[in-house]
Amino acid sequence: MTSATERGYARELDRRDPLASLRERFIVDDPDLIYLDGNSLGRLPKATAARLKQAIAQEWGQQLIRGWNHGWMEAPERVGGKIAQLIGARADEVIVADSTSINLFKLAVAALQAQPDRHKIVTDDLNFPSDHHVLQGIQALLQRPVEIHVARSPDGIHGPLDALYEAIDRHTALVTLSHVAYKTSYAYDLQTMTERAQRQGAFMLWDLSHSAGSLPIALNDCSVPLAVGCTYKHLNGGPGAPAFLYVRRDLQPRLANPIPGWMGKRDVFDFDPMYQPSQGIRRFLTGTPPILSLCAIEPAIELFLEAGMVRVREKSVLQTEYLIELWRAWLAPLGFSLNSPLESASRGAHVSLGHPHGLSIDQALIQEMKVIPDFRPPDTLRFGACPLYTSFEDIFEGMSRLRTVVSEKRFGKYTQAPLVT
Amino acid sequence: MTSATERGYARELDRRDPLASLRERFIVDDPDLIYLDGNSLGRLPKATAARLKQAIAQEWGQQLIRGWNHGWMEAPERVGGKIAQLIGARADEVIVADSTSINLFKLAVAALQAQPDRHKIVTDDLNFPSDHHVLQGIQALLQRPVEIHVARSPDGIHGPLDALYEAIDRHTALVTLSHVAYKTSYAYDLQTMTERAQRQGAFMLWDLSHSAGSLPIALNDCSVPLAVGCTYKHLNGGPGAPAFLYVRRDLQPRLANPIPGWMGKRDVFDFDPMYQPSQGIRRFLTGTPPILSLCAIEPAIELFLEAGMVRVREKSVLQTEYLIELWRAWLAPLGFSLNSPLESASRGAHVSLGHPHGLSIDQALIQEMKVIPDFRPPDTLRFGACPLYTSFEDIFEGMSRLRTVVSEKRFGKYTQAPLVT
Repeated sequence: MTSATERGYARELDRRDPLASLRERFIVDDPDLIYLDGNSLGRLPKATAARLKQAIAQEWGQQLIRGWNHGWMEAPERVGGKIAQLIGARADEVIVADSTSINLFKLAVAALQAQPDRHKIVTDDLNFPSDHHVLQGIQALLQRPVEIHVARSPDGIHGPLDALYEAIDRHTALVTLSHVAYKTSYAYDLQTMTERAQRQGAFMLWDLSHSAGSLPIALNDCSVPLAVGCTYKHLNGGPGAPAFLYVRRDLQPRLANPIPGWMGKRDVFDFDPMYQPSQGIRRFLTGTPPILSLCAIEPAIELFLEAGMVRVREKSVLQTEYLIELWRAWLAPLGFSLNSPLESASRGAHVSLGHPHGLSIDQALIQEMKVIPDFRPPDTLRFGACPLYTSFEDIFEGMSRLRTVVSEKRFGKYTQAPLVT
Repeated sequence: MTSATERGYARELDRRDPLASLRERFIVDDPDLIYLDGNSLGRLPKATAARLKQAIAQEWGQQLIRGWNHGWMEAPERVGGKIAQLIGARADEVIVADSTSINLFKLAVAALQAQPDRHKIVTDDLNFPSDHHVLQGIQALLQRPVEIHVARSPDGIHGPLDALYEAIDRHTALVTLSHVAYKTSYAYDLQTMTERAQRQGAFMLWDLSHSAGSLPIALNDCSVPLAVGCTYKHLNGGPGAPAFLYVRRDLQPRLANPIPGWMGKRDVFDFDPMYQPSQGIRRFLTGTPPILSLCAIEPAIELFLEAGMVRVREKSVLQTEYLIELWRAWLAPLGFSLNSPLESASRGAHVSLGHPHGLSIDQALIQEMKVIPDFRPPDTLRFGACPLYTSFEDIFEGMSRLRTVVSEKRFGKYTQAPLVT
């Protein structure tokens, strides 16, 4: 085989890739565009475009209100049940609802209310800012003392394991972390941390937004009590597609949804003003779900089920390792740092590279080089590879153009605001 | 002119209708289907189908993450600003977000937290069950005494004005009511009730779900502090389309969103874990909005702006009066009661008719007669007329088929569950 820095090497990896043909199942209209931001917004599956056409023209346009009797009402559970297969949960433990932040609010409040004698929430500084905002909102809302303990990453890349183990104690009601850190791609060991929380009697609540669809997750095997996650990043569910939440079956009757609504009632059609929750996962629903955005998720999940998460992860590890090889050969000499873990077992499906001119480089890549990563302050470019549609040659081409931008100093004039999540 | 019970009368009304041509702007694929459930799910505007096609194929499919820089990020405010024109508010006082229930939760909690010395919420028994559920959830959540006072309608149709006036006192933090009652179509006088609440120093929070798009609303002129509403009923925004919320400009800096999230931050892109709210209406956003369902709302709102809410209301009054005339001539003799106010000034855009066999009649209408109303227990059929696409002949035809179902007793075999909202 040729050297990793030659195009032929990437092409050979693509030839050997058992998932390569799945790329054809996505809309890729401009092969010259190198899209490495599937960690923020996944590409459009062709089957989704077809599904939406049906949902709009036939279901809304013709069935009208009868659409609720022909699939819409069950959609949150039906799509949730398919996501469950990707994250090692039972079908009746996952449901699609609201946004990740709203779901985090619901489950975090439920966990706190179930433990009135405990006052502490433990998290880390790698967690999403938006997750911190929700916790701060809960702290302000509940009229009892709630302490938020934020463990600090030792190197800004890896999770602060020791600091977390130390912070989790018998006063801890809730431990909540991103399974894969949005900025550094650090992946926690789900089992170990969940056990540490349980051992102290605290609820563990995982945010799977950057891990669902990027690596196999075994919620049941790890006895995870609570989780939330996003569908529009690695899962390719479409812009702002509704999120999911997971509650372990035995906990469902014990936890109350702090925002009860008609979709979560035992009898949705009794129109009784007195709320009686559903016995199962539906109790965590509130209002009417956005059906079009919800329908868009399902075909993408089916592609992951077809590929299988083990194969997805195998390719993902190869892809991030390949990207890191190109970083070492081409980009480290140009001043790029690796802001993700070097060891694959502790890394998700994106790789973060730091550079003092990161923001300008990001803008130059997008505007001049048709490469789309994203930027996270102060200095980090994130490159995501989705094994369903990203080719090894995409990675070669993306890193090659990145090298050009920096070696030819084409980024000088860019100081614009960064792209979104 | 011929008698109201002759088809020619309806056709004459359609001929004189200045809004008649707007029907062509909607998908009406089966002219024999009499759709009188726009109060639950409005029809699909042709412009919406085109807009969604663009959002899916061009914006998601091609622009990918760059869609956020080309319209998605501002969509909650942009669409909110158009809804503002329909409800007598300023553009920067309305924003599209989440579901009606989540928005009610946010604003009700914000109002309660702003008045820690007041413990009482006043509502009525005509309000949506789902609004009651949210209030019950808040009562369970806040660890201070919250009393929910439910005023009872004197006749099951009209709002309990005297009981409300009596209940609203100096302990009242919040008065929250449906502007138009979902079951009876009773419409409150927005100004009088808002004044009564303000006079006692309580926040008034209107649920406009059944009034936005069905009658002119003057939030600013009535000095309304808070409102929420639905976009998928009269506003034709699509199944489960996200809801809106309104906060009067002067109150925005004083009220805190109890579920803070990244979309509501002062600087969305700073990734600072410490939440700092936006100064304006955006602070009431939480997570990422479901873009496809959100995009679907805009073309429908534009149709209302084109028609003008005064003309929409004029036609709506004519249509509900016509329906009531047919009820008097055909249906009262068959045992139907009018479960809506007789006086047009106190009525929204739907008419409720009660019958001891209401549920079976509803099912027979749908299954055998191609007429779609909806049913609300214990006995009420709701018939909604949307002035943008419902013709007077639709109403004639719908009531005529209803008469047939009952006079020929075709409903005997139906005992199924009712259709949705």
